[in-house]
Amino acid sequence: MHAWLLPEAVEDLLPEEARRIEMLRRRLLDECERWGYRLVMPPLIEFVESLLGEADDDLDLATFKLVDQISGRTLALRADITPQVARIDAHLLNRQGVARLCYCGSVVRTRPADLFSTREPLQLGAELYGHAGLEADHEIIRLLARILELAGISSPLLDIGHVGIFRALTGGLALTHEIEEALYAALQAKDRPALAELTQDFPEPARTGLRMLPDFYGGAEVIRGAAACLPALPEIHRALGDLQRLAGELADLSLSFDLADLRGYHYHNGVVFAAYAGANAGPVALGGRYDGAAARFGRVRAATGFSLDLRLLARRFEAKEKAMAILAPWPEDEGLRKRIEALRAEGNIVLVALPGDVACRADCDRRLVRRGEEWIIEPFEGD
Amino acid sequence: MHAWLLPEAVEDLLPEEARRIEMLRRRLLDECERWGYRLVMPPLIEFVESLLGEADDDLDLATFKLVDQISGRTLALRADITPQVARIDAHLLNRQGVARLCYCGSVVRTRPADLFSTREPLQLGAELYGHAGLEADHEIIRLLARILELAGISSPLLDIGHVGIFRALTGGLALTHEIEEALYAALQAKDRPALAELTQDFPEPARTGLRMLPDFYGGAEVIRGAAACLPALPEIHRALGDLQRLAGELADLSLSFDLADLRGYHYHNGVVFAAYAGANAGPVALGGRYDGAAARFGRVRAATGFSLDLRLLARRFEAKEKAMAILAPWPEDEGLRKRIEALRAEGNIVLVALPGDVACRADCDRRLVRRGEEWIIEPFEGD
Repeated sequence: MHAWLLPEAVEDLLPEEARRIEMLRRRLLDECERWGYRLVMPPLIEFVESLLGEADDDLDLATFKLVDQISGRTLALRADITPQVARIDAHLLNRQGVARLCYCGSVVRTRPADLFSTREPLQLGAELYGHAGLEADHEIIRLLARILELAGISSPLLDIGHVGIFRALTGGLALTHEIEEALYAALQAKDRPALAELTQDFPEPARTGLRMLPDFYGGAEVIRGAAACLPALPEIHRALGDLQRLAGELADLSLSFDLADLRGYHYHNGVVFAAYAGANAGPVALGGRYDGAAARFGRVRAATGFSLDLRLLARRFEAKEKAMAILAPWPEDEGLRKRIEALRAEGNIVLVALPGDVACRADCDRRLVRRGEEWIIEPFEGD
Repeated sequence: MHAWLLPEAVEDLLPEEARRIEMLRRRLLDECERWGYRLVMPPLIEFVESLLGEADDDLDLATFKLVDQISGRTLALRADITPQVARIDAHLLNRQGVARLCYCGSVVRTRPADLFSTREPLQLGAELYGHAGLEADHEIIRLLARILELAGISSPLLDIGHVGIFRALTGGLALTHEIEEALYAALQAKDRPALAELTQDFPEPARTGLRMLPDFYGGAEVIRGAAACLPALPEIHRALGDLQRLAGELADLSLSFDLADLRGYHYHNGVVFAAYAGANAGPVALGGRYDGAAARFGRVRAATGFSLDLRLLARRFEAKEKAMAILAPWPEDEGLRKRIEALRAEGNIVLVALPGDVACRADCDRRLVRRGEEWIIEPFEGD
């Protein structure tokens, strides 16, 4: 086994890709700041109780555990940043009213999500706390659309769902964790036979309602269809009203609706969404409402947000080409050193030729040469 | 135990500090790019054999180990990025001639270095590969001085040593690892009694030479002093010649020399240096030559570089104050939405007032108000 081999689904980002990611990172974080989202940087490791909620088996399995030599307790290497930002909002900022926060950092997973995924996504996201009204969902979806536009995805497909409908239908059933997981999987896969089997002993209106959910997928018309067909429960009425309002307010975006999409239903409890872009089969961003998920940090707060993998996003981002460098001879005198300093201060890349290094020529299209007392820049011509 | 408590020596970076770090990060990476150093982003986890060299017990103890569920092998959570960059140079770039690389990322340590340190430094560094000549040491020290200047440390004290002298004196002795560690500790601490005891059975000229090293500390005159007093071994002659040349070429910087400073001698083997800044007791940056340290990656390369903790450095960095925001009402109409978009595109922070959120006023010094058909910006006056 060679020392230079990396583990499966773990990669270096080499100069060209690293530069593209860095440029996109700056551009997206700057936009978040201009929308009032303030940057936070939570740590890579925390006690496992802080990072993992109660019910989220998937996140637990995805999370590397470590032993803290200082306390003897179990630490986790973060596999998701959102719970950390919720903790910061709940406890550290403890701000009255609305808090807008954003972040960008690496997370590590024990296994890749699929054959093409990395185990170390670079998670960028924005979270809006303290506003239960639909305006927060609206703002977060608009911010996501803008972020994707800045990343070169001008018309993403935004697929919107509402976990409240599923919760309203299953609320009184006292389902076991296993049944809930199976229902979730059947709905995500729109697997009607499995859904029929799972719900065969369910009382009405849960049985009929759940079996119908996979049918409601498409444009804004599915909301009206669902309102006509789904059981007339007040929570369902409210959820469909929310979706209807978003469909109207966000009509300039490419929206679709999917009432069987419960993505992240473990902690989500309102409007949820996924963004898709042309070539990528999977979503490029995920988000939704998770009111009260920070209760374990001692504060119940309304919350919504999105997150995405910047490494995935950067693959389709066309960064401005790196400028070619100016080649300077090794600066024996103070005058040349000052000249190089000034050129760099103007934003130029200046490579100093180390004695014997001929390969550096490849990165340069101009060079500094002495003409009398002056150092001038001239284009490189072949010798 | 509360879920919001963080492990010892692990911290969140909240908006003000996170913003300062982000601004400094960009400024320093941009400067590295202008000197021709290209950004790379190695992963947080690697196989333990890649991350850890053979002899470095300290780094081994500082490194968290994990089990890779996919391969069953031991992974390490990186505690240092330099070996990763050396691996990239040696194997992935495989570039002929000089390669200049820079990086910025978090590292995690099992224990903090001292009471005031974090276990999660944000390591930023630059590495220069493929040039054995002193010009590389010169360039790296100048780049470090410039980086520190950009971070607000205009005249750092640069303390320079040369591991070659220690290696020349101990080269023929076949010391055990334990004795070498004890010698190292005694020299670092300038503990003359311990040094006398450790070297009492050493042959000459090692005994006298090693016992003298702590005396050679101060300005450039110590180099001449050492040349007169230390054993006339060719490696020592060469090392002192290197230091003399640096003292001349870098005379505009605040330099001191310390021949007993073997910082990082585990893998260093030439000129080494540490940068100090006023208030900080410990160094703010460390670096030096480590030719051949990447041999385990299949390529022997000349190498020198430096690294620093951006979080420590940012504490003394005065970032430009965050601009105050413009408060906008919830955009019911398309005209207002376009106006907000345009203001953000000009670089303004525009906060949209979510219904009922009065706290947002604190972040704003202007607001958008309607005058007839126009949306104009006016300063906030108390209501």
